[in-house]
Amino acid sequence: MAAERVLPQIFQYVDQNVESYKNLLKEAVAIPSVSSDAKHRDDCVRMVEWMKEKLKEVGASTELRDIGFQTLEGKQVKLPPVLVGALGNSSHATTRFMSISKWQLFGRGSTDDKGPVLGWLHAINAYKNVGSELPVNLKFVFECMEESSSQGLDELLLEKLKPEGFFDTVDYVCISDNYWLGTTKPCITYGLRGISYYFLEIECAKMDLHSGVFGGTVYEAMSDLIYLMNTLIDKDGKILITDIYKSVAPLLETEKELYHTIDFDPEAYRKSIDAYKLPHNAVKEQLLMHRWRYPSLSLHGIEGAHFQTGAKTVIPGKVVGKFSIRIVPNQEPEEVEKLVFDYINAKIKLFAAYLYEVGKLPKQ
Amino acid sequence: MAAERVLPQIFQYVDQNVESYKNLLKEAVAIPSVSSDAKHRDDCVRMVEWMKEKLKEVGASTELRDIGFQTLEGKQVKLPPVLVGALGNSSHATTRFMSISKWQLFGRGSTDDKGPVLGWLHAINAYKNVGSELPVNLKFVFECMEESSSQGLDELLLEKLKPEGFFDTVDYVCISDNYWLGTTKPCITYGLRGISYYFLEIECAKMDLHSGVFGGTVYEAMSDLIYLMNTLIDKDGKILITDIYKSVAPLLETEKELYHTIDFDPEAYRKSIDAYKLPHNAVKEQLLMHRWRYPSLSLHGIEGAHFQTGAKTVIPGKVVGKFSIRIVPNQEPEEVEKLVFDYINAKIKLFAAYLYEVGKLPKQ
Repeated sequence: MAAERVLPQIFQYVDQNVESYKNLLKEAVAIPSVSSDAKHRDDCVRMVEWMKEKLKEVGASTELRDIGFQTLEGKQVKLPPVLVGALGNSSHATTRFMSISKWQLFGRGSTDDKGPVLGWLHAINAYKNVGSELPVNLKFVFECMEESSSQGLDELLLEKLKPEGFFDTVDYVCISDNYWLGTTKPCITYGLRGISYYFLEIECAKMDLHSGVFGGTVYEAMSDLIYLMNTLIDKDGKILITDIYKSVAPLLETEKELYHTIDFDPEAYRKSIDAYKLPHNAVKEQLLMHRWRYPSLSLHGIEGAHFQTGAKTVIPGKVVGKFSIRIVPNQEPEEVEKLVFDYINAKIKLFAAYLYEVGKLPKQ
Repeated sequence: MAAERVLPQIFQYVDQNVESYKNLLKEAVAIPSVSSDAKHRDDCVRMVEWMKEKLKEVGASTELRDIGFQTLEGKQVKLPPVLVGALGNSSHATTRFMSISKWQLFGRGSTDDKGPVLGWLHAINAYKNVGSELPVNLKFVFECMEESSSQGLDELLLEKLKPEGFFDTVDYVCISDNYWLGTTKPCITYGLRGISYYFLEIECAKMDLHSGVFGGTVYEAMSDLIYLMNTLIDKDGKILITDIYKSVAPLLETEKELYHTIDFDPEAYRKSIDAYKLPHNAVKEQLLMHRWRYPSLSLHGIEGAHFQTGAKTVIPGKVVGKFSIRIVPNQEPEEVEKLVFDYINAKIKLFAAYLYEVGKLPKQ
């Protein structure tokens, strides 16, 4: 059935069923499936089972896969099962976006990520109810631990589902965990930047030291780490790692033109995060390009240092700085990694011979 | 009674009673009085009461003072009482150090700080048992929250005990919470450096942001904070704050001479903390001077950033850098504070006009 004929029916069906969508989302949000809290683990299991029932109702094959245990709050806790299944086996290859009327629901998981996940269910249901075949075959993997690093998922995908041939007929992968560009117009995200994440570990003593006693008589790991982290990025967000922009895809005129017509309001964006000022002079096209097609570097934090509220007088013995680079076409992770290692090694050499000697990082 | 006559008796008594000292310390260490853990709060109370009994046994007047509540693990928890009291009312003014034979006890609080605190009890007991009067009058304040910022203590001392005249007859203050200089020779610490502690708060957005979505389109608080923290100290530990060393007491020849004869082994010190290399070329006199008579600056950590293990892709919305300066004669806290504020304000102005505009720090 041609999309031109089906879609108006689908949209009509969607508009007629907004109330039932709200109710279903309310039901989902009411399950307190907080992945990071052991006492809500049963709710996570319940959430996965709830979704299983919903998918069974629309005719999907479903299966709960056990993915073992995790250590949580010092105890071994069973991970919630992962819901795996499929629907349809014809040979189309497009997905359709569906919008629902404007309304707001406040509750943990409403937008991230129960609402978007339920969108799939609604899309399937709409096709079913207008008596039209889904334009795509679907395979799905739903898990409940995304906000807790998706523990156990990699293993399931790579070591179990892949060898079983689960992905053999898959042409495209969709995730339902992204944002609109603004707050008024829906959008389809059809690509994501990659990530190259780094741990920069510096140790100055085998234990934490008291600054009153030791301050002034040790090289402090924190000052060395802060020095190194400060060499990574300038005040305008430019990455200082040598040659890091070299392999970024050149900006062609044809691509450049695309940004002009995109609906994105820098001022609304600025207000939405309550930033004082935006970089790139708040120019729309520049902001979009730096969001999508240029790499960015973020300093995430430091492990091992004083992080609580209040005034602790510790000299941390070992600290680990965390930073990452969002990578873009045509950067390769291996190439980025080499540039980062070369740069950091050179800075260490320049900054503190003793650090270089310690051999915490491989010699050049 | 002259010290020359009493001390040999005291030392003999001490040597004869080592076993009982061990047992008493074992008893004290066996009470798990962990001040930071609400479920051990009763043990903290028990610890204070235990000490009260011991002091009563040697004839001291004792009193438990209530110091109110604290918020711990999200709850209002009663603080352990503070033990206040006195022993003796004659007119001497010296304290004596007592060493005990070498042995080791492993257990939380053995050396920090139940062992040193019990030393007072043993000293009092020794005088009592050799039939000699204590060469000093004692007043004491024992509390159980030192490892948790001594919550409530300041208030008790300044707003209650001081107005009551508790300190009116006090000539010297002793604390029993310090270290030996090495591991073989006991020492009396007769002075401490002060501290001037700073919080450097930078906010780039009203919430934490995801680096995949926002990276490249916001000024990040972390890179600004890291920049500022990096301006404070150089690789050799020299404080870069303008004029910070100006009021430090000049080093006179007579003082300089003192350091040569002090028993301190830099190599043993280095090994004790497992540092790769020591600053000041590991020169004994320089190390001692930087430990005692020169200021030092330590970067303690960052609040609000990613501090856990693992790889979190957060752009922290608000971060607070913590650093402090150990101050020495003749630095005054007010003067140091002004120098720090002036310096940071100038750096902000130089670095990022937008930050300066935000007005997070007072304009110059």
